[in-house]
Amino acid sequence: MEKPDSGQRETARLEAFSDGVFAIAITLLALELRIPHGTPGERLGHELLDLWPTYLAFVTSFAIVGIMWLNHHRLFTLIGRVDHRLMVINLVLLLGVTTVGFPTALVAQYLGHPGEREAVIAYQLAFILCSIGFNFLWRHISSPHHDPPILRVPHDHPEVVDIRAAYRWGPYSYLPCLALAFWNPTVSVALNLALAVFWAYHARPTHERRSQNAPHS
Amino acid sequence: MEKPDSGQRETARLEAFSDGVFAIAITLLALELRIPHGTPGERLGHELLDLWPTYLAFVTSFAIVGIMWLNHHRLFTLIGRVDHRLMVINLVLLLGVTTVGFPTALVAQYLGHPGEREAVIAYQLAFILCSIGFNFLWRHISSPHHDPPILRVPHDHPEVVDIRAAYRWGPYSYLPCLALAFWNPTVSVALNLALAVFWAYHARPTHERRSQNAPHS
Amino acid sequence: MEKPDSGQRETARLEAFSDGVFAIAITLLALELRIPHGTPGERLGHELLDLWPTYLAFVTSFAIVGIMWLNHHRLFTLIGRVDHRLMVINLVLLLGVTTVGFPTALVAQYLGHPGEREAVIAYQLAFILCSIGFNFLWRHISSPHHDPPILRVPHDHPEVVDIRAAYRWGPYSYLPCLALAFWNPTVSVALNLALAVFWAYHARPTHERRSQNAPHS
Amino acid sequence: MEKPDSGQRETARLEAFSDGVFAIAITLLALELRIPHGTPGERLGHELLDLWPTYLAFVTSFAIVGIMWLNHHRLFTLIGRVDHRLMVINLVLLLGVTTVGFPTALVAQYLGHPGEREAVIAYQLAFILCSIGFNFLWRHISSPHHDPPILRVPHDHPEVVDIRAAYRWGPYSYLPCLALAFWNPTVSVALNLALAVFWAYHARPTHERRSQNAPHS
Repeated sequence: MEKPDSGQRETARLEAFSDGVFAIAITLLALELRIPHGTPGERLGHELLDLWPTYLAFVTSFAIVGIMWLNHHRLFTLIGRVDHRLMVINLVLLLGVTTVGFPTALVAQYLGHPGEREAVIAYQLAFILCSIGFNFLWRHISSPHHDPPILRVPHDHPEVVDIRAAYRWGPYSYLPCLALAFWNPTVSVALNLALAVFWAYHARPTHERRSQNAPHS
Repeated sequence: MEKPDSGQRETARLEAFSDGVFAIAITLLALELRIPHGTPGERLGHELLDLWPTYLAFVTSFAIVGIMWLNHHRLFTLIGRVDHRLMVINLVLLLGVTTVGFPTALVAQYLGHPGEREAVIAYQLAFILCSIGFNFLWRHISSPHHDPPILRVPHDHPEVVDIRAAYRWGPYSYLPCLALAFWNPTVSVALNLALAVFWAYHARPTHERRSQNAPHS
Repeated sequence: MEKPDSGQRETARLEAFSDGVFAIAITLLALELRIPHGTPGERLGHELLDLWPTYLAFVTSFAIVGIMWLNHHRLFTLIGRVDHRLMVINLVLLLGVTTVGFPTALVAQYLGHPGEREAVIAYQLAFILCSIGFNFLWRHISSPHHDPPILRVPHDHPEVVDIRAAYRWGPYSYLPCLALAFWNPTVSVALNLALAVFWAYHARPTHERRSQNAPHS
Repeated sequence: MEKPDSGQRETARLEAFSDGVFAIAITLLALELRIPHGTPGERLGHELLDLWPTYLAFVTSFAIVGIMWLNHHRLFTLIGRVDHRLMVINLVLLLGVTTVGFPTALVAQYLGHPGEREAVIAYQLAFILCSIGFNFLWRHISSPHHDPPILRVPHDHPEVVDIRAAYRWGPYSYLPCLALAFWNPTVSVALNLALAVFWAYHARPTHERRSQNAPHS
């Protein structure tokens, strides 16, 4: 039976919807940036400096959700078509992304105060859940049982090999942060941010790495 | 008279606008996830567990709005052009989608407390209204009185037959949930979630079902 | 000098950005739908019925912003390229659209209470400003002084003639509503809604009207 | 090694995501437009006039974020492909854009009251940071060390020369506003708005300026 729509167009619409959710989720994080209502103007300068846990939580979550978007983007460049299950798993992943703002608000509110441990544990769990979501998404995409395949590149394409390795270990990368939360919640969040910055500097898709090492023609 | 724009491009813009509204409405649901302001940090762990009605309402609404998006998406893969009335009916449907957050907040706030029945009834009514909206959208799209037709596939296309059956019964599928609201509001919402998960597992467009049953070439 | 980008692609990006702002502005209207915090559950049913000014304001604003989006959409189907001034005027128009939520909240809060007159006057002024914005946008688009022209259809195209007439009178159409605000603010808002519903039923682009009157081939 | 996706499509998706963030950030600014909860209706008219600092902050931020979007848009018309670093720098820029709402709210709340100086300094710093972000983005895009180049026009293209000059001085253009904040915060914000309006009237991409000066054929 003929499919009523081309795979490319459906993929583009799923991407656009996902991009919309990512863009809104990442922008709504900034709604947490606010000073307590009724703060007297004389103390505004001090109050703004005292908000450092809010700034730390905001920048860290922005960086991590931004990296998730980059990964989502990169994943979809490898996809040739979408099926029902892919759309459902993608929705579950987006559910994870939209909830990041909640533990971010908890960290902003409680870091440096009683309850900070519970707040940071919730924060790390949210990222672990997102990471597991990416794992399921990738497993479905790269499964060899689809006919026609969902991937539009061969299974031994360097980018595919790369992502396979990265996603296998992804959820575990948050475990040190989770462990640190029990000892020092602020250091735990700072490690999240440091890892995100490190990733932003060093992670590049395979084709960029290769072309840089190759002698220029 | 020549139409100043191609049907395909107008359809794409209506899709993009609708996707935007769906993406924002589904992401704004997460704004309900918050703890009462001034919760003492010592009780944060308990407070987070006590929020279960909020989590249940959020996940259920996210699942149902996500499924609505999937259905909207699937519907538009069958459309070859848009007309004025289609855009108006679509706006009415989107009005329904954007209001889902309101009864979701009611359920989050009142489930397990006095007022839960009224909250869950409002919740079910919102979904029934959305479902009726989909019904009108489909009736207009599949009407045989358009010249040229809005559908870009024949009226006996398996996907069309499928959707016709599904949309006829759609609004009624919420009636058991509505009835349950009078007896046990929590079970009513849980049934919404169960139906959504069931749908996500089992609903697939016809072309996917056929191609799976057919012997692989 | 060669332009670095094609007119069609720039037009598409301006449309996409505008659609995003329209979609967010229309969805954020629903944030006004909420009950007073701490409403006792026993009174939830009554409280929900007492919110009728909120429902009226929400549905009316949703309808009018939706119609503005439809008009914006229709306008852009006639555009072949964008220039700097078009983008600036479009931004001013979007500024008007994003502010509609503010007087909507005022109407929701004050209708039926002291202050309702001021609220509804602000409401009507917001729509008049948007309408004037559309006027300026249209004047710029249809100006005969562009080389190449911005319109991608001739100046006597029926759709162009139609829009020219509609936009000339657009801002005045809110004057009766504004006048009514001084006598009965609720009737004033109801007239807005009635006009929007009337428009939705009867306004159709010229090519649809013609093709319907013409004998089918 | 072959790249799994075309440069044009990746550029389009990065644009779409950025447009989404810009559209949401600019629309969320309007959430600041609200009157104090519980304002008695009798005083609504006066209260609405007393909100002038909110209106000034809103319109100014809307204008500046709108201009940033226009600049971002113009920049991307010159780009032929994206790489990892471009996406990372773009995310940092978007982080700046999403935070503009925070100092805008401070200005709205404190202008004319104690604390206004701190509020306006934070406001100017936000714009300076965004401006530096644009600087880094441009430096990366226009770097001659990419192979293939990211720019899809030659390095001496008039538009490139134009942007190079504009971006070099961009961050400094906010210094007078910052200095004024120490003397008169209201005048400082008013200067921001005046500069934005001036820019909107006079800035046009090179190809528009040339084509206007050239004799019409």
